[in-house]
This record gives sequence, structure tokens and C-alpha cells, in this order.
Amino acid sequence: MELAQLREEVLAANLALPAYGLVTLTWGNASGIDRDRGLVAIKPSGVSYDELTAADIVIVDLDGNVVQGAGRPSTDTPTHVALYRAFDQIGGVVHTHSTYATSWAQAQREIPLLGTTHADLCAHPIPLTRALTDAEVQEDYEANTGVVLIEAVAELGAAELPCALVRGHAPFCWGAGPAAAVQNAVTLEEVARMALLTSLLEPAAAPLDAAVRQKHHQRKHGPHAYYGQS
Amino acid sequence: MELAQLREEVLAANLALPAYGLVTLTWGNASGIDRDRGLVAIKPSGVSYDELTAADIVIVDLDGNVVQGAGRPSTDTPTHVALYRAFDQIGGVVHTHSTYATSWAQAQREIPLLGTTHADLCAHPIPLTRALTDAEVQEDYEANTGVVLIEAVAELGAAELPCALVRGHAPFCWGAGPAAAVQNAVTLEEVARMALLTSLLEPAAAPLDAAVRQKHHQRKHGPHAYYGQS
Amino acid sequence: MELAQLREEVLAANLALPAYGLVTLTWGNASGIDRDRGLVAIKPSGVSYDELTAADIVIVDLDGNVVQGAGRPSTDTPTHVALYRAFDQIGGVVHTHSTYATSWAQAQREIPLLGTTHADLCAHPIPLTRALTDAEVQEDYEANTGVVLIEAVAELGAAELPCALVRGHAPFCWGAGPAAAVQNAVTLEEVARMALLTSLLEPAAAPLDAAVRQKHHQRKHGPHAYYGQS
Amino acid sequence: MELAQLREEVLAANLALPAYGLVTLTWGNASGIDRDRGLVAIKPSGVSYDELTAADIVIVDLDGNVVQGAGRPSTDTPTHVALYRAFDQIGGVVHTHSTYATSWAQAQREIPLLGTTHADLCAHPIPLTRALTDAEVQEDYEANTGVVLIEAVAELGAAELPCALVRGHAPFCWGAGPAAAVQNAVTLEEVARMALLTSLLEPAAAPLDAAVRQKHHQRKHGPHAYYGQS
Repeated sequence: MELAQLREEVLAANLALPAYGLVTLTWGNASGIDRDRGLVAIKPSGVSYDELTAADIVIVDLDGNVVQGAGRPSTDTPTHVALYRAFDQIGGVVHTHSTYATSWAQAQREIPLLGTTHADLCAHPIPLTRALTDAEVQEDYEANTGVVLIEAVAELGAAELPCALVRGHAPFCWGAGPAAAVQNAVTLEEVARMALLTSLLEPAAAPLDAAVRQKHHQRKHGPHAYYGQS
Repeated sequence: MELAQLREEVLAANLALPAYGLVTLTWGNASGIDRDRGLVAIKPSGVSYDELTAADIVIVDLDGNVVQGAGRPSTDTPTHVALYRAFDQIGGVVHTHSTYATSWAQAQREIPLLGTTHADLCAHPIPLTRALTDAEVQEDYEANTGVVLIEAVAELGAAELPCALVRGHAPFCWGAGPAAAVQNAVTLEEVARMALLTSLLEPAAAPLDAAVRQKHHQRKHGPHAYYGQS
Repeated sequence: MELAQLREEVLAANLALPAYGLVTLTWGNASGIDRDRGLVAIKPSGVSYDELTAADIVIVDLDGNVVQGAGRPSTDTPTHVALYRAFDQIGGVVHTHSTYATSWAQAQREIPLLGTTHADLCAHPIPLTRALTDAEVQEDYEANTGVVLIEAVAELGAAELPCALVRGHAPFCWGAGPAAAVQNAVTLEEVARMALLTSLLEPAAAPLDAAVRQKHHQRKHGPHAYYGQS
Repeated sequence: MELAQLREEVLAANLALPAYGLVTLTWGNASGIDRDRGLVAIKPSGVSYDELTAADIVIVDLDGNVVQGAGRPSTDTPTHVALYRAFDQIGGVVHTHSTYATSWAQAQREIPLLGTTHADLCAHPIPLTRALTDAEVQEDYEANTGVVLIEAVAELGAAELPCALVRGHAPFCWGAGPAAAVQNAVTLEEVARMALLTSLLEPAAAPLDAAVRQKHHQRKHGPHAYYGQS
């Protein structure tokens, strides 16, 4: 894959965020990785989606150093590259402050698994990171945000858990590539919205039965999947 | 009626789902039946609404076997055909994960009859299916989803109850044809939304008076209906 | 004023309802009156807003008898004409099942006066009608809906109270003409939405101070109004 | 800067309010100041956004007297000019009745600092003004609304606090110019929305850790900011 193609995919992923209603103003960023070259393409910091072009996409290495591009990469770049370093199988990362997922992060609660829509995304509650220590905030805050995300996900792995909530902050999502990460971000937001409405209606709502949870997840994922055309 | 016409009606019903805001990504499907031929037209599994054409609509028999069409039919096909087999008078079925109806399904509560908007749709609370047993989930999950829907509806009948909530999952709606099923899905979602807001405002909200409930239902349905132009 | 002009105004008022997000499907209707002729122009029953033309608008007399027009007038026509007969100063009536105002009606609660947005519309809580008796429902339901609306409004008058909630049903709004009634319906819905959110956040929220309430109302209404350009 | 340019900036800021979904009907206004001339450009009162042109923007002096323009300036003009007189560093002011910020104002609660989105806007809770006395309401209501806003903000200053809620009324926001004030109004509304959802989900939600709050604020503001391209 050429870097030019990766830049286009990352541009498309970034433009999809406002189109799906996941971002306000400039709050969000998507990236993609070229594993062969060890290079990550990411949105420049604070640039309006209206004006974003493929040429603005910044190329960084896996330490976050700029390799190509005139602009400064997203301030969240150290978090993205930490995720790429930790999880070999992911090809795209998306960060947004989408309304409902962020509300769960602010409530400092994981998202319980209340229905089959959630099970289609992931067979587990959506995890919440631990609080950063003051030292972690003051030194290398964005890289340490990656550290706590990786801790929250590591046991089950990034294939089982396509997203997590940073406590008091907002979600990060990932997938096989930038477009898959966007799909997970869209799904997470709707799952978060329905979980919040369900919780308001019935604070003691029971989690989805384990059998249905496994069934739905396996319909879409894994060796016996039968959802879709492939 | 030609199958080509049924395919067009089913295509239109499927495209109406994102247009009415009832589906996110590819989560939803509409079907219609040709009762003379015993054939059902249904959305292919996991295909984007943007790309869907009449030629993609899959034709299956009442056992869910593909009769025409290159793609795999919706994974929910066994649920659709179970409903068509059980209820002679229905001509269209719609399944969505629409936000508010799904939140009631996740809260594992029927939707109480709180106002005349609900009574215009149906003179009863919207029922909730019983939980599937583990065996029902593991063997023939989608057909068994049909089984519990039919159980929930059978006593009053599919004419009296145009929709039901699958526990922990989402709604199924039906009607005289695909377009009528879509109208019921749109109405159910708004009824679910207002019932949720009403319940948050007043958890002990009283059900609608029986006299008003019957009056509104009879204005739109049955031998003395006087709503509309026909 | 020609009837043709009234028809156009009533058409525009009806088309404004879906444009402002106040109606789902065909649930809503607007009317206007020609006081000189004693004739009311109103939406036909159950017709889609997409297809509605000025020629479809039905003309009825103040008893609700059709004077011009091929279609059947709105089933709510007896409510509209009852309001026109009771309140000389109103020139337009709008009925919707708008989400938030209807949720208050279903909760069977008047809308408390919690802020200046409400005071700009009306210096009082939005009243709720009493329950109809079974006899009132069974005989002449729509006219009796007018009766309870008039009872709810009569003491303060239709100039002081531009709208009311029918218990278990939905709002009716009125104004100097059809366009003014639409503006009141738009305002009521936003007032209802903010009152609901306020009440969820703070169930014991205090009503707006009387001095501010009077000040805001008088800025927009009455002899010393100084809002706007006239 | 020519006044013509200021008028264009103020027109653009006013038109941005409905585009961002912050205003219903005509409820909102934006202004900007030419500090050299001591002149403020502001929306005319009660004019529809659809019809607004740069020529309609009214120019007033810092006492609110009209200097140029055929229309009557916004009724809230005395509040705007009070803010400009009190806070030298601000160049634009925006007032809306945006849904969620207004709901907090109606609940008579400051907006707690629950997440990093809020910290990006402001490192403090969003303050709520004290109640106006009856005398303050009856004499010079709009100027006294400025008085209580200034009281609420004065201790920390208008640079630290880019907005405040008028008790029982709605928010006022400000910034370096009209466009910056609009951005703050957009951000405040989303912050208010997420804080309300968070509070419903978890009424005892803990405020954001002080270290993260300072970090996020400093990423975007102050001498060591590293967000954006400048």
C-alpha cells in the first residue's frame, strides 16, 4: 500500500466522524497504520474538518516523530502510537468525544452489556481505564493515556475489546483499519446511548443472558460467523 | 403481483428505515410476502443501504430457502418466515434496533399504554417476549426468536398487536404489506420515545383511560374508522 | 381576505409542522379562520404532508360542516371549531403530537414555569385539561375535547394562555393566525423539552421569580412591549 | 478595522447560531466590538435569521445608544455593552437559549466540571448568577442582567471564565471576537448536554481530577498550549 492511499483512507475516516455526528467542532481524530513501513497517518491538530485535505494528514513514526507533513499532528498522537505498538492486529484508531460514550466516561462507569446490539460489537462490558496518577498526567499525559487504555484492554485483548473509555475523558476505538475503527466508534456511540436510556428507565436492568450474548457475537465475528456477504 | 414489484416494495421499505432514522449502519431489515406463491422478498445480510438495489433483494420460500438472488438473505430470515407462517393476515415485516424501542427491550419491560398516540397504533401495551432458553439460543436461534414473538402475540393476534419487543434485543413490526410495517415501526419508535420520557418525568404515570383508548383505536381501525380519506 | 389566501396560509402552516420537527407521519393539523365569513380552512384527514396542496385544504363552517373541498376534514375539526367559537380573538389553531409537550400530557402534569423562555410565551404554567368522562368520550369525543380545552383556558383567557395540554393526548396551540399558532407550537415544544430536562436534573426546581416572569412577558406582549421591530 | 467588516463578522456569528442548532426561532444574538471606536455591532431585535443581512446589524455606543442602523437593536443590548465595559479583553458576546445550558440555568445549578471536554473550555465550573432583586428587574432589567453576570465572573475574570448562566434564564458567552464567542457557545452547549446526561446516570459523579483539569486546559490555553497549528 502506498502512503498516498493510507492518507486517503485516514482522510475519509476523519471526515466520517462529523458526518456520523460523533464530533463537535474539531474534537476527534482518526489514524491508520502502514505496518510494513511502521508509519502512522493521523489528523493534524485543531484543523477544521471542512478544510481538511489528504495533504494535511501528517505521517509519524511509531514514536510519534513527524516524518512527513507540514502541520503538527493531533495532540493525541502519543496515545494512538502507544495503541499501535501494543496491539499488532489493529490497523486504525479513532478518538472522539461522542456525547453518550463520553457521558459514561464522565460518570466513571463501564458500559454494561444490556442487549444484542452491544453483543454484536463486543461480548463484554466496555471497560473504563483507571485514573491516571498526578505524575502520569504531568509527564507525558497522552502517552500515559495509552498506558491505561492498554492496561484496560490487555487481559482480553484488542480483538475481543474494540474500544474502551478513558475515565473522565472519552472513548478510543480501533479496528482492522481506519474505516473499521470508525464503524466501531459509530456502534459504540449508539450502544452507549441505548445503555444510558435503558439505565434511566430501569437502573437495575439485568445484563444480557450469556447464551444470547455469545450467539450474537459469534454471528458477526469468528470462525462460524454468518452475518454479511463474505 | 409480479415478484419484480414485490422486490421494489421491499427495497423501498428497506430504504425508508434509514430515512426515518430507525437504523444505524446496516442494522435492520424489511421483507414482504407474495401469499399466492408462498415467497418472501427480504434484504440481503449486512449490505449497506447506500448500495442496495432491487436486484439485491433475495427471494426465499416459507422455510427460508433461497429461491432467487445471488446474496445471502438477512440472518433474521428465519424469524420473518416464522411470523408469515403464523399470521396469515400480515404482508410485511420490519426489524430494527431503533433507539427507544430497543431501550425498552433492553430494560426488559413492555411499553405501557400512556397516551392516544399509542392507542392510535394499538389498544394494548406493546408486549415483551419471554427469555429464550439456552437450548433455544444454541439451536436455531433466529427461528426460536420467531417462536417467542408468536407466543407473545398469539392470544390477541397480529391484527390487534402490530409489533412486539424481543427481550434484550429489539422490536419486530408487521402490517398488511412492507410499507404498512414501516409505518408501524416509525410509530412504535415515537411511542417508545414518548413513553420513556413520560416515565422519567412521572414513574407512576397512569395508563390512558380505557374509553379514550378504545375511541382512538376505533377512529383509525375497524369497521367504524373515520380517520383518513378512504 | 379571499378564501384562496386563507387556504395558502393554512397550507403553509401545515407544511411548517414537519419542517419544525413537530409531527411524525401525518399526526398534526393546522387551521385558520375567516371571521367575516365564519369559515374555517383545515387540513384534510390522514393526507401526507408531502402531497398536500392548497386545493386539498377543506373549508368548513363553524359547526364543522364541509362547505368546500373534496376530502374529509381532519378528525380533530370539531375541536378546532369549538375553540374558534369560544375565543373570538384567535385566528389560527395547531394540533400536534410533538414529543416533549405530549410527554407532559401523558405524564398528566401541567408544564411548570421554570424559565424566561416560558415567560416569553406565556406568564403562567401551561394548563392540563381535566379527564373526559366516559360519556364525553363516547358521544362527540372531538367536540368534548374542545369543551375541556375551553374549560382549562377560560378563566385566564386565550390571549393569556396560547396553548394547553389535553390530558393523556397532546397539545393544542392557537394565535392571531395560522402562522402565529405555529410559532406558539414551536415555542411550546422547546419550553416543554427544557422543562422536562430541568425537572430530571432538579425535580424540585423552583418556578421563575414573579418579577422576572412579568418582565419577560411584558417585553414581548402588551402595551409596553419592546421586543422586535414593530 | 472598518465597521463594514465588523458588521460582516457579527452577521456571520449570528447566522452560525441556528446553523449550530443553538437557537429556536429568533431567540439569540451575537455582537462584536470595535475597541478603537468604542462601538458595538449587534443583531436587531426579533428579526428572522433567514432575512438578516449585514445592513440590518445595528451599531451602538458603549451606553447602548444607536449610532447607525434603521432597526431597534436586540433587547439584550444593555447586557452586551455592560460586559464590554467590564471586561476589556473580550471582543464578542453571544446569548442563546440553547437547550441544555438553559436547562442548567433553569435548574438554578452551576455546571460541574465532570470531564476533559469541559476542561478544554474552562478550568472551573460554569457559574450561575445570583437572583436579581425585584428592584433590579423592574428598573433596567437588561443592564442589571449584565451586573449579575459581571459579579459571577469578576473574581476569576472573563479570560478564565468564557461564559456564565443567568439564573432562570440562559447562558451568555464571550471571546476574543464574535467567532470565538460562537465557538464557546457551541462548546458550552455540548458540555452542558454531557454534564446533564452524566448527572442523570450518576448523580454523585465526581469532578474531574485537578491534575487532568489543569493539563487539558493548558493544552489549549496559555503560554504552553500545544493544541492546534499556531
